[in-house]
Amino acid sequence: MISLESDYITGAHPEILRRLIETNMEAESGYGLDRYSESAKEKIRAACVCPEAEVEFLVGGTQTNSVIISTMLKDWQGVVAARTGHVSMHEAGAIEYSGHEVMEIPQKDGKIDAETLGRYLADVYADGNLEHMMYPGMVYISHPTEYGTLYTKKELEDIADVCHQYELPLFMDGARLGYGIMSLDTDVTLEDIARICDVFYIGGTKVGALCGEAVVFTKHNRPQHFVHSIKKRGALLAKGRLLGIQFDTLFTDGLYFEISRHAIEMAEEMKKIFHRKGYAFYLESPTNQQFIILENGKMEELKKDVAFSFWEKYDETHTVVRFATCWSTTEEDLKRLEAVL
Amino acid sequence: MISLESDYITGAHPEILRRLIETNMEAESGYGLDRYSESAKEKIRAACVCPEAEVEFLVGGTQTNSVIISTMLKDWQGVVAARTGHVSMHEAGAIEYSGHEVMEIPQKDGKIDAETLGRYLADVYADGNLEHMMYPGMVYISHPTEYGTLYTKKELEDIADVCHQYELPLFMDGARLGYGIMSLDTDVTLEDIARICDVFYIGGTKVGALCGEAVVFTKHNRPQHFVHSIKKRGALLAKGRLLGIQFDTLFTDGLYFEISRHAIEMAEEMKKIFHRKGYAFYLESPTNQQFIILENGKMEELKKDVAFSFWEKYDETHTVVRFATCWSTTEEDLKRLEAVL
Amino acid sequence: MISLESDYITGAHPEILRRLIETNMEAESGYGLDRYSESAKEKIRAACVCPEAEVEFLVGGTQTNSVIISTMLKDWQGVVAARTGHVSMHEAGAIEYSGHEVMEIPQKDGKIDAETLGRYLADVYADGNLEHMMYPGMVYISHPTEYGTLYTKKELEDIADVCHQYELPLFMDGARLGYGIMSLDTDVTLEDIARICDVFYIGGTKVGALCGEAVVFTKHNRPQHFVHSIKKRGALLAKGRLLGIQFDTLFTDGLYFEISRHAIEMAEEMKKIFHRKGYAFYLESPTNQQFIILENGKMEELKKDVAFSFWEKYDETHTVVRFATCWSTTEEDLKRLEAVL
Amino acid sequence: MISLESDYITGAHPEILRRLIETNMEAESGYGLDRYSESAKEKIRAACVCPEAEVEFLVGGTQTNSVIISTMLKDWQGVVAARTGHVSMHEAGAIEYSGHEVMEIPQKDGKIDAETLGRYLADVYADGNLEHMMYPGMVYISHPTEYGTLYTKKELEDIADVCHQYELPLFMDGARLGYGIMSLDTDVTLEDIARICDVFYIGGTKVGALCGEAVVFTKHNRPQHFVHSIKKRGALLAKGRLLGIQFDTLFTDGLYFEISRHAIEMAEEMKKIFHRKGYAFYLESPTNQQFIILENGKMEELKKDVAFSFWEKYDETHTVVRFATCWSTTEEDLKRLEAVL
Repeated sequence: MISLESDYITGAHPEILRRLIETNMEAESGYGLDRYSESAKEKIRAACVCPEAEVEFLVGGTQTNSVIISTMLKDWQGVVAARTGHVSMHEAGAIEYSGHEVMEIPQKDGKIDAETLGRYLADVYADGNLEHMMYPGMVYISHPTEYGTLYTKKELEDIADVCHQYELPLFMDGARLGYGIMSLDTDVTLEDIARICDVFYIGGTKVGALCGEAVVFTKHNRPQHFVHSIKKRGALLAKGRLLGIQFDTLFTDGLYFEISRHAIEMAEEMKKIFHRKGYAFYLESPTNQQFIILENGKMEELKKDVAFSFWEKYDETHTVVRFATCWSTTEEDLKRLEAVL
Repeated sequence: MISLESDYITGAHPEILRRLIETNMEAESGYGLDRYSESAKEKIRAACVCPEAEVEFLVGGTQTNSVIISTMLKDWQGVVAARTGHVSMHEAGAIEYSGHEVMEIPQKDGKIDAETLGRYLADVYADGNLEHMMYPGMVYISHPTEYGTLYTKKELEDIADVCHQYELPLFMDGARLGYGIMSLDTDVTLEDIARICDVFYIGGTKVGALCGEAVVFTKHNRPQHFVHSIKKRGALLAKGRLLGIQFDTLFTDGLYFEISRHAIEMAEEMKKIFHRKGYAFYLESPTNQQFIILENGKMEELKKDVAFSFWEKYDETHTVVRFATCWSTTEEDLKRLEAVL
Repeated sequence: MISLESDYITGAHPEILRRLIETNMEAESGYGLDRYSESAKEKIRAACVCPEAEVEFLVGGTQTNSVIISTMLKDWQGVVAARTGHVSMHEAGAIEYSGHEVMEIPQKDGKIDAETLGRYLADVYADGNLEHMMYPGMVYISHPTEYGTLYTKKELEDIADVCHQYELPLFMDGARLGYGIMSLDTDVTLEDIARICDVFYIGGTKVGALCGEAVVFTKHNRPQHFVHSIKKRGALLAKGRLLGIQFDTLFTDGLYFEISRHAIEMAEEMKKIFHRKGYAFYLESPTNQQFIILENGKMEELKKDVAFSFWEKYDETHTVVRFATCWSTTEEDLKRLEAVL
Repeated sequence: MISLESDYITGAHPEILRRLIETNMEAESGYGLDRYSESAKEKIRAACVCPEAEVEFLVGGTQTNSVIISTMLKDWQGVVAARTGHVSMHEAGAIEYSGHEVMEIPQKDGKIDAETLGRYLADVYADGNLEHMMYPGMVYISHPTEYGTLYTKKELEDIADVCHQYELPLFMDGARLGYGIMSLDTDVTLEDIARICDVFYIGGTKVGALCGEAVVFTKHNRPQHFVHSIKKRGALLAKGRLLGIQFDTLFTDGLYFEISRHAIEMAEEMKKIFHRKGYAFYLESPTNQQFIILENGKMEELKKDVAFSFWEKYDETHTVVRFATCWSTTEEDLKRLEAVL
């Protein structure tokens, strides 16, 4: 069985496991007060070329979105996001659970654009009765998006300009950030992201860690008593070292980027295979997720040999499915994929 | 430096790390649908001698309390707990964040008793105006308690009788359950707990795992669509295998009990040392946490050599501190402790 | 100045005030336990031809929507509503504040239809991963809608069929229900509504009362301990008689219907005036709200003599505005309107 | 039947009804934008001798407590209140529903004192681990308290001093404020309250209005977008005039104080009657509520002729009950009371 089901199918990059073992017997304080968390934060600040960044570690993506959004929004605010955004559709109502609305706007291939956003905000504020509706309080984007697509630096800057015109923080969901940064087809660096966004996170879970997301507040804007708010939401790990050591490892000798680049190379190779075999792309992304249209009979047949993800119904006889690469995808996996396609 | 600060100072039991490495390259589905989670659940059902138990894994203690309480309570209900209960005082308001009240009742050394509980419930229901107050919806106990103390089987059964008389589920917070079960001074087994309680959890984080708590619903009472509710609260791990593998390991060849017994043995030895050295106990518990009264000058001096936890002010010149053992505490640690006391 | 700004511009129908005065010195228990609330409930059950209906009084529309939806939904459910529904757009996020999502579906002139709803629900359930998304838990419609439009009996029955196929309760927001029932262009009676819907409310605030909405649960489905949940949401009046007496009056000698019919007659006359004067309708509704497109210069001029509501921008030079009639609108008001148009 | 059950047994003071009728046909904008609300606010500012006060109207007491507390607290804060406070015990968990904890402190006859408060706050901040517990964010007192007792000016000032030392706003629940101000045994004026407290409300419901509470923010501290937050909590009246006209009337020619004084006079007379008849007081308050200990047989007998409220069980054979006067209590009522005692 070949598994290209997702980027969280295997454990952690071996170097992470090695470091967990190496440090296992060292006594460290809990709740993020260990020295590895401190060291990891320092390395992330350096990688972001943002010495004033405030870094905090959380466990998973939905949790991170929910904690950031619910602590940064005011009582009267909602978060603006693409209709396809993870917070809009795939988090079981976690944002609403925190008492806030997701204000959905149109998107294309998972991306919003500055013009649509600007027009939306202008319309919202043009309404005479905003006290009865919802104040926008933040703009959420994902990079890569849920469809694996990427913003250009210019697009991000334009979106940030609109945000700042309305004094809204720009929040980037970077659950798969590494694959964005290491894409062959991007002009956006980690430093750019730290400069352009007000808050973002560097996803670990889907980029080689067992779990963990590193939240980066870049504008002296970490919510007050943030640790309390994390605890209150059930998101504070007792053994915070588990996150500290993993991110310390990921940001030592560029491992995070190396892992990401490997998955990108595997994805590029995989795209070639699908092309050679004449498969139809629903969306050919520049990152590690590829969306293929399969005839339903073919889909059932393939399932016997390859694990992939159902994405959505395409038409009565076809289905969109997702194939994803990650740190553990091998050349051998792809050869076997080609053989069974 | 000797660390007896808590039971989450070191990493994981080596056998857990060994299994994480061993299984690292195996492809597994995410979100708890991996085969190790399945296997771990089966082993836990067997250890509980409760074949119909429904088992789910969560990441940490506060999260687990919050998820269980907020999904099992109805809109009009609160949870009854000791004033010293973890949910009452040490979770940053996580239960209230979910919209529910903690209904505090008196305790002694961290324990509630059936009579006090019964009287409290009788009084609540005697009030003519319950629609304006709060309906009890669940009884929360911890075992061991926050003070390391334990209930006897008779005490648990009596509490359960009161609960069932009022049709309230009995929920046991077992963040340190192993130390309760393996105490030298208990008649309560895991099987008893599964029989007496309606829901409880087997703590991993504080008993040798990197993270993880195994929730056990024993009476066909797992909340409907529980996975959705976990996701909504930001508590669902993408790499659910991290929890599955750890609990599968802990419940293979009795590792969970072995780890617990080791900490108990170390704690018993530690108690002897404190006695030999003439220290005053605030509370001498039958589990892995011991509470000692230190004169403040002595406390400052000891801090140079031993890490322990501040518990509470005793009087103007004395402080209660906690010393805890765990899977990684060694005879050597205790010898060094004796030397510096 | 002529005011056609809304249907809540004046006080209460004089008969309501008369009854408030008449009963003013009678001592009654608080919190809805007065004899007028009891009597009003009985009269509403009779008017609905639904002897088993459970009736409760609340103060305002947004409050009523929020209380009903948040007490009837389960933790894992959201409410399905038209994108233009009051709960979707005009309640300042009250539903999200209760922790639940509004699942928006397409509409036409404020109405949803059975086919769109059925397709939407089929698609939702076709998705393989509903635990990560949202379960529909209720269908919300308004009648009249936010655009003054009405469902036919057939349309309501078809929507209810779809709801029941998916075991979802159908909830009708009747903030302006009287105007729907007494429209010249409807085949839907109050009895039909009680039969077809699982829960609905009879709006008082916008139909001649000072405040108040009468919630009707028609299928033995009032949430358990509903009064507690009302209190918890800050929605329980101490002097519940204020609601009881008003609804008792509205449902004595058909006053509720008489008030509604009067507003409908005034609205029909108003429509004729706009037609005679050659105004363009954005939407010519069969109820008490009419939506007119005004050239912006004309709009500014009219404002000097008539109060109306801004609805939305039509284009760069035109605006949609709303004119509404109510119990206190007079022939004289309309003559003056015609004079200034 | 004589009713002394509560201070919300009858309708509204006749002058309020007169004004509702007088203004009934005037067209006013909704949602608090009517001219009576404006006028009432101005009169309240004048009565408080606090020209910069920001005044808002809400419908009922629990709603007002919940709206004020949940909009003024930060995510990491709870509200400190007496264990007997209305928010602690008698609001069905409304504060917890908003996600915040009530931090209960000891009281005497319903009152807290500066010393206990100061010690409590000192202890809270002395704890090393506040991120895991709860930050105090506001101090709640009621005046009169739930037991009808009153603070002296000195006691209020001392409490305020402690609050300000910890930068906590002092919030006074004034559901029965009039009875406090017009007590024969108080040195606290409305002006004092406005000066000492950061926010308080002037109760209407229990002092002669049909409904309504006037919230007064005295220190330029009204929460931002407060109307939105009110709407979001389902607490915004469409016909805001109902509140505006009532408070405009109550603050015209001192009606609010006159009503309160009448109830106080009746209460003083009632106290004399109970003394003359040899009844035992549980608590003889300086305001309109008196708490009497009745032998249970006597209680049952009295119930046939007088309506009063169950307060709490006193012992096996006695019960504490409450007798309350209000605007509508008459000399005749008291004569009849004396006759049946």
